[in-house]
Amino acid sequence: VAQATRRAGIVVTGTEVLTGRVADKNGPWLAEQLRLIGVDIAHVVQVGDRPDDLRNSLQFLVDRGLDLIITSGGLGPTADDLTAEIVGSFQGRPSRLDVALEARIADIVTRISAGRGWRTDPEATAAGTRKQALVPDGASVLAPVGTAPGLIVPPADGAAGAPIVVLPGPPRELQGMWDAVLASPIVQDAIRGRDELRQQTMRLWGVPESQLAATLRAHDDAFGGLEITTCLRGGELEIVTRYAPPAQAAYDELEKAVAADFAPELFSTDGRTVEDIVADELIARGLTIATAESCTAGGLASRLTDRPGSSAYLVGGLVVYSNEMKTQLAGVPAELIERVGAVSAEVALALAEGARDRLGTDLGVGITGIAGPDGGTAEKPVGLVHFCVASAQEPLSRKVIVPGSRADVRARSVTIALHMVRQVLESG
Amino acid sequence: VAQATRRAGIVVTGTEVLTGRVADKNGPWLAEQLRLIGVDIAHVVQVGDRPDDLRNSLQFLVDRGLDLIITSGGLGPTADDLTAEIVGSFQGRPSRLDVALEARIADIVTRISAGRGWRTDPEATAAGTRKQALVPDGASVLAPVGTAPGLIVPPADGAAGAPIVVLPGPPRELQGMWDAVLASPIVQDAIRGRDELRQQTMRLWGVPESQLAATLRAHDDAFGGLEITTCLRGGELEIVTRYAPPAQAAYDELEKAVAADFAPELFSTDGRTVEDIVADELIARGLTIATAESCTAGGLASRLTDRPGSSAYLVGGLVVYSNEMKTQLAGVPAELIERVGAVSAEVALALAEGARDRLGTDLGVGITGIAGPDGGTAEKPVGLVHFCVASAQEPLSRKVIVPGSRADVRARSVTIALHMVRQVLESG
Repeated sequence: VAQATRRAGIVVTGTEVLTGRVADKNGPWLAEQLRLIGVDIAHVVQVGDRPDDLRNSLQFLVDRGLDLIITSGGLGPTADDLTAEIVGSFQGRPSRLDVALEARIADIVTRISAGRGWRTDPEATAAGTRKQALVPDGASVLAPVGTAPGLIVPPADGAAGAPIVVLPGPPRELQGMWDAVLASPIVQDAIRGRDELRQQTMRLWGVPESQLAATLRAHDDAFGGLEITTCLRGGELEIVTRYAPPAQAAYDELEKAVAADFAPELFSTDGRTVEDIVADELIARGLTIATAESCTAGGLASRLTDRPGSSAYLVGGLVVYSNEMKTQLAGVPAELIERVGAVSAEVALALAEGARDRLGTDLGVGITGIAGPDGGTAEKPVGLVHFCVASAQEPLSRKVIVPGSRADVRARSVTIALHMVRQVLESG
Repeated sequence: VAQATRRAGIVVTGTEVLTGRVADKNGPWLAEQLRLIGVDIAHVVQVGDRPDDLRNSLQFLVDRGLDLIITSGGLGPTADDLTAEIVGSFQGRPSRLDVALEARIADIVTRISAGRGWRTDPEATAAGTRKQALVPDGASVLAPVGTAPGLIVPPADGAAGAPIVVLPGPPRELQGMWDAVLASPIVQDAIRGRDELRQQTMRLWGVPESQLAATLRAHDDAFGGLEITTCLRGGELEIVTRYAPPAQAAYDELEKAVAADFAPELFSTDGRTVEDIVADELIARGLTIATAESCTAGGLASRLTDRPGSSAYLVGGLVVYSNEMKTQLAGVPAELIERVGAVSAEVALALAEGARDRLGTDLGVGITGIAGPDGGTAEKPVGLVHFCVASAQEPLSRKVIVPGSRADVRARSVTIALHMVRQVLESG
């Protein structure tokens, strides 16, 4: 198994993350940033706002012999924000008030509140500001991006352990401090001697994981030095491989083996997602697209515009949730809906053509289905979705029974539609 | 700090989660399920597909004296899926092939592949199936929901430690096994004696966290026995409080204090989100709504239809990304766009009224802004978004400079629009 010589651990604090109310974005972001500089991640540990749990998590990572520890969260002004103080005492470095920092934070709080028209009471916020300006002895301060400063806290002089980088929880603030983290001599020292760690991604559409496993097993001996992980996400099978530079030839073998066994299903070897490919193709060929969505209700249009510059191809879309709107906005004959039902191949086709004709685009996509949990029948169960992509070619139609919850059905349907658009673009 | 007498730890396996390519959904889901049965979460640990890291994570949780450990992921047919085997050996229980289970899994794989029209080769998948049918000595098997069975593996006879529940990674499969987990006598024994653990949520809109901190501090002595956590999410400030039943009076005090200091901003005390409130109000009053979205491009319509039954109020929407579509679909005069620009209060108003008039609804919402990262000017910077809600009352207009990335601007804009709809509904 490929492994960089330097490894880091991440502690994500906050009961809101631990209890699942807020999805953590910092662990994933930090893991990728560390990989880019050749540092591997050993563990991400989530803990609540409880001193003992945080201390024990830090100790666990130190005991694992990691080179660098990063925490996120717990730097706010409220009493449940404890990270800075606990990290300081964990590293044997008592905290002191940094008066200049205190003034700077107070200034920021005043400015932000004024800008948003929020009611504030300087007296009341002073205690929180003072708390945020406590700095462990010997720690470096990272300038606030929001109101909270970050910290880099080395182990006590002469002690073993790893430097702990203390970052705020809001992703924008954490990310805004990253350049300063990398510039820190303490951090540079800790990760000195790291290897380059390469990562490559292949994506397949329409392949069961068990089938891929067979291909991997058949070539097992050729793949030394590769850390291969496969996962299903939204119907796509993703193969991500991490390796040190000497294993490049082994990776090239792997890519050849997958391409040989799964030529029709392998749609990306360069890291691009299906929306990247669709966007690139549309832009390269100067084509435009419009949507008419029932069960996904704008989800496809929204995903088509996730990328900057999407106005080059997406001119607009129709959300046609009610039957009346299918007729009025997309021109689906009321008689047709009456006869075959709103969830049907015929209506998906009429939606796709209606979007294309009425919005005057090169491609039109129609989606109509039963997202559930109610509204299913024996003949048309929950999860049944009809798709159509209209273009200058023959329309491409598909009917899928999408498994899972309402949210799964809606999200997966958007992905299926994107793959159909990709197939139309690749064939035309 | 309130604390249930029984605590659990979760290990989420998979390099794809650890390296941030896939957001973990299982930790949050399991944490909430455990809370509902009065079991508190101490840690969620994410590890890659590396045996040593997994073993050490299990040991960390055992050392913390937890009552129950749950793992997710690593039960697939590929060689990087190692969880079952490692948990077995960690608990001192060697694995054996369960022949009946093997036949059952083979049957499922064949059936699924046939249903999806996937190419399969029974020979090739046999090795993966055999691997998935290995069961540690003395473990209980949880019937597969997908192809992988789950396991409940007690500590070795006479040894200390905690039972380890081994669940598959796909959320639908993991969730489908949960009832069987709760029914297991091994699990029931491990969590016997737990307390009820209550959780209440308050949500505020337009309050800085520092201001709330002041309120909490002012009443500090009254809030014993409450574990209060606050977090900002998408511009909303959420206060979640966990406590054992004897602290109910303290919680009531907290709610009173927050309501007294933040009457205009406190919009939910019963756990409902802004979309719940908007949906409930629209349904209760029999009102309908339509959208005309530029920079959010269907994001608001999509979020308005996240809930089952949303066809009662959302009839449809217009995605008007290009200026031509603003004119053609929503009836915004081309001359107006020419004169004041597409991102303007006037165009937001015209979009809202256009959606309401053309789709024949009671409310219409218009959103137009600059999501970035390009397209900003000194006068109209990236993040500038104009909103309008048209109704039988005076239209409600707002202009906000939304901070953050393109994705942040788009997501936050949807939330702002929902709060404006809520305000119109509450005032009318």
